Amino acid sequence: MEKEHHFIDKYLKPLSIKSKEYPIGIGDDCAVIDSKEKLITSKDISVSGVHFPKELNSYFIAYRSVAIAISDIFAMGGTPTAYLLGITHPNPDDDWFKSFSDGLKDFNEDYDVNLIGGDLTRGDLNISVTVFGQAPNNLLTRKGANIGDLIFVSDLLGKGKKGLNDYRRNYASEINHYLKPKLPVRLVPKLRQLATSCIDVSDGLLIDLKRICSSSKVGAVINLNQNIYLTDEHDLIAGDDYVLCFTAKEEFKDKILALDSSIRIIGRIEEGTKVKVLNKNNKEINYKKDGWESFEST
Amino acid sequence: MEKEHHFIDKYLKPLSIKSKEYPIGIGDDCAVIDSKEKLITSKDISVSGVHFPKELNSYFIAYRSVAIAISDIFAMGGTPTAYLLGITHPNPDDDWFKSFSDGLKDFNEDYDVNLIGGDLTRGDLNISVTVFGQAPNNLLTRKGANIGDLIFVSDLLGKGKKGLNDYRRNYASEINHYLKPKLPVRLVPKLRQLATSCIDVSDGLLIDLKRICSSSKVGAVINLNQNIYLTDEHDLIAGDDYVLCFTAKEEFKDKILALDSSIRIIGRIEEGTKVKVLNKNNKEINYKKDGWESFEST
Repeated sequence: MEKEHHFIDKYLKPLSIKSKEYPIGIGDDCAVIDSKEKLITSKDISVSGVHFPKELNSYFIAYRSVAIAISDIFAMGGTPTAYLLGITHPNPDDDWFKSFSDGLKDFNEDYDVNLIGGDLTRGDLNISVTVFGQAPNNLLTRKGANIGDLIFVSDLLGKGKKGLNDYRRNYASEINHYLKPKLPVRLVPKLRQLATSCIDVSDGLLIDLKRICSSSKVGAVINLNQNIYLTDEHDLIAGDDYVLCFTAKEEFKDKILALDSSIRIIGRIEEGTKVKVLNKNNKEINYKKDGWESFEST
Repeated sequence: MEKEHHFIDKYLKPLSIKSKEYPIGIGDDCAVIDSKEKLITSKDISVSGVHFPKELNSYFIAYRSVAIAISDIFAMGGTPTAYLLGITHPNPDDDWFKSFSDGLKDFNEDYDVNLIGGDLTRGDLNISVTVFGQAPNNLLTRKGANIGDLIFVSDLLGKGKKGLNDYRRNYASEINHYLKPKLPVRLVPKLRQLATSCIDVSDGLLIDLKRICSSSKVGAVINLNQNIYLTDEHDLIAGDDYVLCFTAKEEFKDKILALDSSIRIIGRIEEGTKVKVLNKNNKEINYKKDGWESFEST
């Protein structure tokens, strides 16, 4: 028996829906993309024991791995449409694949995306997702932040961290913020004309805002004396939030805050190259690290 | 220090060249694809100890991993243009990355392709490559083989296997067939108007021809009494050859053989669903397996 094709045929092919943009289903050497518009694409890898707990049910491995990859499409203001899936697994069985494909199916329905192909092979558990989306006319990049712009986050920070802690303690309350991150599908189309730069907070707010500042050649100050939701100041360097951090001109402040009640202003773009964080007493906080780093965490 | 970004900035970003089709370089959340033509895309994973020897120099890991992924673009008659690279590595250092990026650089020059983005993270060594190519007007798929068509291979079979054996014995002669597979870059454009179906022989001729037959709803007979180069009959189930197996109407036989002196006729498409292999005495050979299978080999 060809195990590889047993799993592909039984669990993955049925998820692949032919469309005008993706006219052939899984089953040839390549997938075809027939798009008249500009595309955006990105690749994200989720490794067992690094990006998700080793014992995590494969339903959530699937949902989460695709979600955090698709997050990059939203970060650029795009509309996600499809993805390729690379599964490396030491010894898959029908139970694992059934639950995994249920996770994919639910994600595809929640975000209206389509599985168009991929690869399945033997090795330590590693999920590699290549996502595709329609590019907007105005790409939201990391390099458009200007001095004086306000800095926003699309949702509360620290929910991913709290979700992982709740998962570890077997609490249910915030667990889905970690297991099934909610992506800003309704917000992004409205942001395209308003934001000057944007990134998804995957590795921690501080490290990701520094990426905006570095690309835009500006500095920034974050004020913890504003109404951003934090469990503690370490939420600024916690990964897994998948909220958007974006900048916009001050004149759009009210318009942006009206888009969604979860949006918070957290600071302002300044001259320079540094990102400063001020506590409630306007004292600067010095962080020893900027965020989650694959090669430094355990 | 952000190790991830140290390696990306130092070794990968310099390989990314902006073009009209790929207008932004590495460094934002997504790569942009601005193509007016149909695209084809595919993902291939290479795992250390499964798809290449654990001790293999990273120059060859890079060259080989991208080559076998790009092979899928040629198999559909396309022209490769770019790729995304997902690197999972337990503990990379500058030496590993220097040599790895040299392998990418040489591959990019040999095949005129461009690195447009990817991901780097911690975990067991696993290279995931998502390739992009321009689709031809006539896609070469697996499903166009017709009864009576001749079956061709674009080059000698068994060279990948011989190359791996030579690598293990530290012989130099055929080693590059394994380490740096040569892809049919000049042949493919000429085949587009002639072949009725096509696949790249990655897992073994027998298994890959069966994929053509299954998609085309036909059978086939392979004649080992013809002049196909074989070390032994197991070459038909050996992986790693990356030659093309394709079918065409008999009337194009001379035209096809004139394209390249390495092309061989190996059999014919028949009615039915089976793929039979006849030895030099016209006796059927029964194979216990069809080819290389990730989940069955060690």
